[in-house]
Amino acid sequence: MKNTHQHNLDFLFHPNSIALVGITTATTWHWTRTFLEGLIEIEFDRPLYLINPKGGEIKGHKIYTSLKDVPGNIDYVIGLVNAQIAPKLVEECAEKGVRAIHFCTAGFSETGEEQRIKLESELVEVAHRKGIRIIGPNCMGIYCPQSRLSFSPAFPKESGSVGVISQSGGNSIYLVKLAALRGVRFSKVISYGNACDINENDLLEYLANDADTKIIALYIEGIKDGRRFRRTLEKATKEKTVILLKGGATEGGARAAAGHTASLAGSRATWDALCKQLGIISVGSVEEIIDVLVTLLFLPLPRGRNALLFGAGGGASVLIADEFENRGLRVPPIPPEIVAQIREFTPIAGNILRNPVDYSQAMMDTESVIKTIGILSRWEGADFLVLFVRTGQFTASRISDNQLKNLLMSRFPIKQGQLPQPVAMVIEPSIVPEEAEVILAAIRNSISSGLPVYFSFATAANAINLVLNHTEKQTRKF
Amino acid sequence: MKNTHQHNLDFLFHPNSIALVGITTATTWHWTRTFLEGLIEIEFDRPLYLINPKGGEIKGHKIYTSLKDVPGNIDYVIGLVNAQIAPKLVEECAEKGVRAIHFCTAGFSETGEEQRIKLESELVEVAHRKGIRIIGPNCMGIYCPQSRLSFSPAFPKESGSVGVISQSGGNSIYLVKLAALRGVRFSKVISYGNACDINENDLLEYLANDADTKIIALYIEGIKDGRRFRRTLEKATKEKTVILLKGGATEGGARAAAGHTASLAGSRATWDALCKQLGIISVGSVEEIIDVLVTLLFLPLPRGRNALLFGAGGGASVLIADEFENRGLRVPPIPPEIVAQIREFTPIAGNILRNPVDYSQAMMDTESVIKTIGILSRWEGADFLVLFVRTGQFTASRISDNQLKNLLMSRFPIKQGQLPQPVAMVIEPSIVPEEAEVILAAIRNSISSGLPVYFSFATAANAINLVLNHTEKQTRKF
Repeated sequence: MKNTHQHNLDFLFHPNSIALVGITTATTWHWTRTFLEGLIEIEFDRPLYLINPKGGEIKGHKIYTSLKDVPGNIDYVIGLVNAQIAPKLVEECAEKGVRAIHFCTAGFSETGEEQRIKLESELVEVAHRKGIRIIGPNCMGIYCPQSRLSFSPAFPKESGSVGVISQSGGNSIYLVKLAALRGVRFSKVISYGNACDINENDLLEYLANDADTKIIALYIEGIKDGRRFRRTLEKATKEKTVILLKGGATEGGARAAAGHTASLAGSRATWDALCKQLGIISVGSVEEIIDVLVTLLFLPLPRGRNALLFGAGGGASVLIADEFENRGLRVPPIPPEIVAQIREFTPIAGNILRNPVDYSQAMMDTESVIKTIGILSRWEGADFLVLFVRTGQFTASRISDNQLKNLLMSRFPIKQGQLPQPVAMVIEPSIVPEEAEVILAAIRNSISSGLPVYFSFATAANAINLVLNHTEKQTRKF
Repeated sequence: MKNTHQHNLDFLFHPNSIALVGITTATTWHWTRTFLEGLIEIEFDRPLYLINPKGGEIKGHKIYTSLKDVPGNIDYVIGLVNAQIAPKLVEECAEKGVRAIHFCTAGFSETGEEQRIKLESELVEVAHRKGIRIIGPNCMGIYCPQSRLSFSPAFPKESGSVGVISQSGGNSIYLVKLAALRGVRFSKVISYGNACDINENDLLEYLANDADTKIIALYIEGIKDGRRFRRTLEKATKEKTVILLKGGATEGGARAAAGHTASLAGSRATWDALCKQLGIISVGSVEEIIDVLVTLLFLPLPRGRNALLFGAGGGASVLIADEFENRGLRVPPIPPEIVAQIREFTPIAGNILRNPVDYSQAMMDTESVIKTIGILSRWEGADFLVLFVRTGQFTASRISDNQLKNLLMSRFPIKQGQLPQPVAMVIEPSIVPEEAEVILAAIRNSISSGLPVYFSFATAANAINLVLNHTEKQTRKF
């Protein structure tokens, strides 16, 4: 059943034309519209055809009543039709010379119903016979900003170095959207669902060879061919950093994965051993993938595990020190001669010059903050610097915008590379809309200064530890 | 040195008059103003005097140049003066018949400097000699909505059943503010800092006997008298549920605690053993305290560990099932006859009727959602129901307000107690201000329906597991 050109999936990412077959004409918010809106937003600049037997138009785009009515060639089809007519659509696509179909359509093997498992086999059989490759079914397909492919209008237009292979569509949207807010940009993101034809192995091989992809993040529920997957992973980890989130790692999760993408999940121990052997960064959530990504992308690799923590709040200082040390990082004491230098211009009451440095009372004095960070950054006992802002301990709305800006450290932007040590930033978000705005501005300010931004003490410590673990292992390997 | 009326601290929480000594006249945003603004906001309705040698007025309140100029009696003083003059202030207070002083003032033993350690001893000596009790120094003092005491204008005016003893002022503000957004209300919150006179034992004894307090949350950096603390804790756990966050549980954290409140932290193993023995819920962060609080307050105790999870997203379903099972909860399969009932009116494509129930495609159909939740809630295989909303997987701003409301489940408010099972809600916040508003509305809607709201899959699973662990232990004990 396997197609022979599995290494050469480049055509998938560079179609000359696209048809959206089965896009709804009834409601503007229907899920089938996501693809049109995604392609418009990312400025897809080759022919784009809409197909629905009812005809009509959407946003000035004519709707053809059938594929064969389309005047030009069609390279790539996004299938939004009902599952039952999917095999028939493949036949029609063959007549138009279509090379690949992404079936977003659900209702196949993932339902667990015999008839629908058969329907998926039938789909594969027709596609194979006609020489058409299939992504899916039951997935979101391809996001590739370079060639202006997208499946959500919320995705960034700029390219980056992160490639993603996600069995789940929702998880891929969640990952791209949340990571984009943290400054991450992507080369190729593929949501591949039931993997009836093109599967995780084909995609992983492709990304391993893709010059635009430096880091590969995987969300996998189950695999089709364990031995090949291991081989491919091994190859991928030689060239790139690989992060893996295994969905369905528990009994309940595995049952959910079976219902989601008809996957056999495999035991947890097997996956853990695989990650350990191959030097893959193994994580437990999408949020953790994002934390590791911002660390890999924006934190120049610290020489060691000694953290210097700087922020406001005595209690917050104790807790962040605990979070860092609990995760295998160290928070060493600052030598008295350095403390003395800072003490010269810093009042003793309410500012605790240890590590963490609690600059509670002096935080409004921008000049002192800059001076102190400068002194601290010259201390060789620290391998990296973490600035932390616990917004929830402010007395809120009573604080003026200006003060809030100072407290959020946006009045003294530190550019990555400007200090001797790598710098990370922890800014805790707020669910209160009035606070969210100024906090988001501070987050964006830090990102544009090249800093990794984390949303909590624990997640910062966790991600930095995972990346240091990974590097230490890599170093030992060579 | 110990005062004899240690069991009878009630007078601290019900002063007939208050003087703020050392409030600044220079800038409106100065930290000393927090106390005035807190007391105004909570509508403190007894005499309130401001003292500063410069005189003048703030917001229509006359500023007296000294304590002795105040015409009336003064019960309680909030000391905002410099550390050096603190002992002198105690002498002046004695002349006015003051019973207790809360010293917010920092710059005592927590600096580690000999001269300032001596200054703190001197302060204690004068206070003891004059028969005045001291809270602090280096802390925020008392929040007691019932008697209209507060140290932040951001705190709720309504009372609740949670008592808090926090060595850190910042952590107490953080805890109250963030917990308030989740629907938690407090009986008494005390930030007690260096504990030079009134300490954790006095306060714990008081709260253990306080009829208004049902749950006690502790943030402790170090203790003065280990044996007494153990005895007091043991007594407290017999009457109330106790949650403990130990700050300074690591080497680095302990050093920070020493610098923060001059505390000796004690080994981690000792604290863990103590919590285990006494049936205390031990947590690692303030956020975890809050998650446990909303569980204790708003989730009627589930009879067991079987969760029924309902939401949208195939990938999200797999991950939430993993998070729950990883934390000792169970996500059992739903029997075919129940699935069949739901299948009657739910399309097969894009809705996965397992556990979790992924209602992705049907979520906009309010009637079906209500019907499905009704059917599921009658299944005896589940001990509690968790509704989850992963906002980050929506295609964002393109979704109308109305749809967002449906997806956030705010169109079908389920009141706690209305279904046979306890119900919990997971709503993931967003850092994007435009989304924050509608999400906060959904959060508030759930809280007003009596539901515990969690901000992530992991934190929901963790808190429910901690509370079930605690109850199971309690049951075994009796």
